[in-house]
Amino acid sequence: MDRALAALERNLGDSVVMRTTEFCECFAHDESEAEGRIPGAVVIATSREHVQATLAIAAEAGVPVTPRGAGTGRTGGAVPLCGGIVLAMTGMNRIKEIDLRDMVAVVEPGVILADLHDAVEREGAFYPPDPNSLKDCAIGGNIAENAGGPRAVKYGVTKDYVIGLDVTLMGGAQMRLGRRTAKGVVGYDLASLIVGSEGTLAVVTEATLRLVPKPQMVRTVLALFGSVHDAARVIGLLVRQAIVPRCAELVDAGALGAMRAQGVGVDERASAMLILEVDGDVASCERDLERVGEACTSAQSIDVVVAQDAAQRDRIWGARRELSPAIRRLSGNKLAEDVVVPRSKIPELIDVLERISGETGVRTLSYGHAGDGNLHVNFLWDDDAQEPRVQEAIRKLFCAVVAMRGTISGEHGIGVLKRRYVGIEQAGEVIQMQR
Amino acid sequence: MDRALAALERNLGDSVVMRTTEFCECFAHDESEAEGRIPGAVVIATSREHVQATLAIAAEAGVPVTPRGAGTGRTGGAVPLCGGIVLAMTGMNRIKEIDLRDMVAVVEPGVILADLHDAVEREGAFYPPDPNSLKDCAIGGNIAENAGGPRAVKYGVTKDYVIGLDVTLMGGAQMRLGRRTAKGVVGYDLASLIVGSEGTLAVVTEATLRLVPKPQMVRTVLALFGSVHDAARVIGLLVRQAIVPRCAELVDAGALGAMRAQGVGVDERASAMLILEVDGDVASCERDLERVGEACTSAQSIDVVVAQDAAQRDRIWGARRELSPAIRRLSGNKLAEDVVVPRSKIPELIDVLERISGETGVRTLSYGHAGDGNLHVNFLWDDDAQEPRVQEAIRKLFCAVVAMRGTISGEHGIGVLKRRYVGIEQAGEVIQMQR
Repeated sequence: MDRALAALERNLGDSVVMRTTEFCECFAHDESEAEGRIPGAVVIATSREHVQATLAIAAEAGVPVTPRGAGTGRTGGAVPLCGGIVLAMTGMNRIKEIDLRDMVAVVEPGVILADLHDAVEREGAFYPPDPNSLKDCAIGGNIAENAGGPRAVKYGVTKDYVIGLDVTLMGGAQMRLGRRTAKGVVGYDLASLIVGSEGTLAVVTEATLRLVPKPQMVRTVLALFGSVHDAARVIGLLVRQAIVPRCAELVDAGALGAMRAQGVGVDERASAMLILEVDGDVASCERDLERVGEACTSAQSIDVVVAQDAAQRDRIWGARRELSPAIRRLSGNKLAEDVVVPRSKIPELIDVLERISGETGVRTLSYGHAGDGNLHVNFLWDDDAQEPRVQEAIRKLFCAVVAMRGTISGEHGIGVLKRRYVGIEQAGEVIQMQR
Repeated sequence: MDRALAALERNLGDSVVMRTTEFCECFAHDESEAEGRIPGAVVIATSREHVQATLAIAAEAGVPVTPRGAGTGRTGGAVPLCGGIVLAMTGMNRIKEIDLRDMVAVVEPGVILADLHDAVEREGAFYPPDPNSLKDCAIGGNIAENAGGPRAVKYGVTKDYVIGLDVTLMGGAQMRLGRRTAKGVVGYDLASLIVGSEGTLAVVTEATLRLVPKPQMVRTVLALFGSVHDAARVIGLLVRQAIVPRCAELVDAGALGAMRAQGVGVDERASAMLILEVDGDVASCERDLERVGEACTSAQSIDVVVAQDAAQRDRIWGARRELSPAIRRLSGNKLAEDVVVPRSKIPELIDVLERISGETGVRTLSYGHAGDGNLHVNFLWDDDAQEPRVQEAIRKLFCAVVAMRGTISGEHGIGVLKRRYVGIEQAGEVIQMQR
């Protein structure tokens, strides 16, 4: 290992290869609860050559490399479990090209998502994926985890926008996968295989992303309900009318409590909130807005507010995007899971959560992308002695979700934290094949 | 081989395992020019167990198996090059489920695409992929080739709709890949890897397909132009206004000639045709229709017709869908290629085709999905002695397309006919990795 690090330093220089413990310490963890070891070195790559050299030298010396975007992941995918080298990609952060004729953007992996959003929207185009961490997370991490976000219900996830990738394999070989064209069927779809592979197959050094036209208008609705079941019913009503909102976020009673604890004023009668957003041209947007209002009313909403300006819209989303840290402050310990069920099973999922909470005594609260059937379920506890019951609750949740033909990870990935649960969802042969 | 066929017959019965030469002969070729050998047996699978038994027995005996949908492929993917066993999937043709709450359809691979279209549209849903062979082709073949069609410009290709697959691997192992939910990131995206793999990785025995709401309204426009460059300009004009037509089909002068030879009345001044289709709710559809008309006018269209009823629309599409056989009748020999360039390069591609035709003396005519940058380029010749020049023309075309950062196969696959050209587009290491 020491020899490899010395070789790296010799090759790349000490402004690229960082070895002080103080610096390396910051790269032992990410935004998840996973604990890694302090890496022996952190490579701050600013070019593809840095990535190639790192992967070549490390492979030869048998030193593990953990590629890392902005470190905002929730399942420990960027955590160096065995130390080794962390390959930090945030220095490769150029937006190389935004081409409106071909409707593609070509970017380096360290570009921060919000910067890409700003850049393409200034040109009148739109890159839809919007994970909660959008102000901090890097495109490379989005690709590694196949990131989603509220807008996935209408626009799909990162995979639906990645059409070409330049990657470096372990060992240093460079490859161009996928394409720049709208279509292409030459060979296996290896670019899609890389998306969501959590850095286990290759390091992305450049991505060609598909853009879509920027919607002319967006309208945002906040609706409150006396019960989470009423709120969930709205989704079904919209599906039946073929209305695809661009976001359909559900916040349950516990999560509303976390909002209130942050000083967000929420009607005390409410035990569930929906944030619904529609977009499109002016006419269809106004029509969809009307239908959304009708659906809320017929599901017994307590209150429906339509954001009148950007500031009001930002306040609504601000409260939603701050939910994760707000929930963290509610108790000593928190574990967040990210399950998906077929959209129609959201009410059943809510019942299951109540039952599990009753059986195990573990407090749960949930929010998330109800339009996709994707809820972020948080388990909260103060007393460390409760932890085995939390594990029991999580396992019960995952089994119930899989029984509903759902999945145990919608957009956060498996990382290191969820590995032990994969066997609940996937057959042994499927796991074996991936190895 | 004989022992394997006997074992198959014993296991599955002679109503499933067909061995007469007369019958097997029909399975030696498909809709491409590829010539295979007469297989020793054709298994008409009607259940997953038939598929498993066939793949298990064949693997043990070392007999090659060629899976086959409806045999409508254009690159020889279903052609048994070495004989062996053809595994015909058209007997597994049940639509098992159409679920409008979750917006999914669960189907067997032998379902004919048009039957699926009819079934889901009757329920108010929509399955967009629409390859030209839609009345005859099977979903399993669509998945194997990642089929597209005119509507891909707005709605994407088969890959964008396949969310879950049951597959049987060579050897007989059964696996469930992917999911039924809107999202999911557990493990590698193996379902996407199967789509477009042309039957080389696994045989699909069931597919879960994502549905979208059926558009309220569709309007169809036929526009004629004095030059193919004028027609191509319309695409750019629409992109700039963020109008995404659901189809944007281009027919060049030569292909128009083939239409006229079929008795389709086309204004003699026209040397290019566009078929443009918009969809959505009534308001946005009418607005887009107006913009399409304006774009055609500003690109110097000779004539613009808006279909007034379903019959007129069917006539327009009928002429378009009959182009491939119509072109075949123009000369003794025809080879059709399926190239894609970045959308903005369509005019450049047209110039390249003229140049190649001039240089090699080979007649070319083109039509296809201009909105995707995807043209079907046909090479025609009568005298067999011309064939080397045809091969030269094809190679020149592929090199030019790759230089424009395009791809040599947009939706037809590689099959057996295009294998020798893959090296023009993909680096040796990429090809090697796929092996």
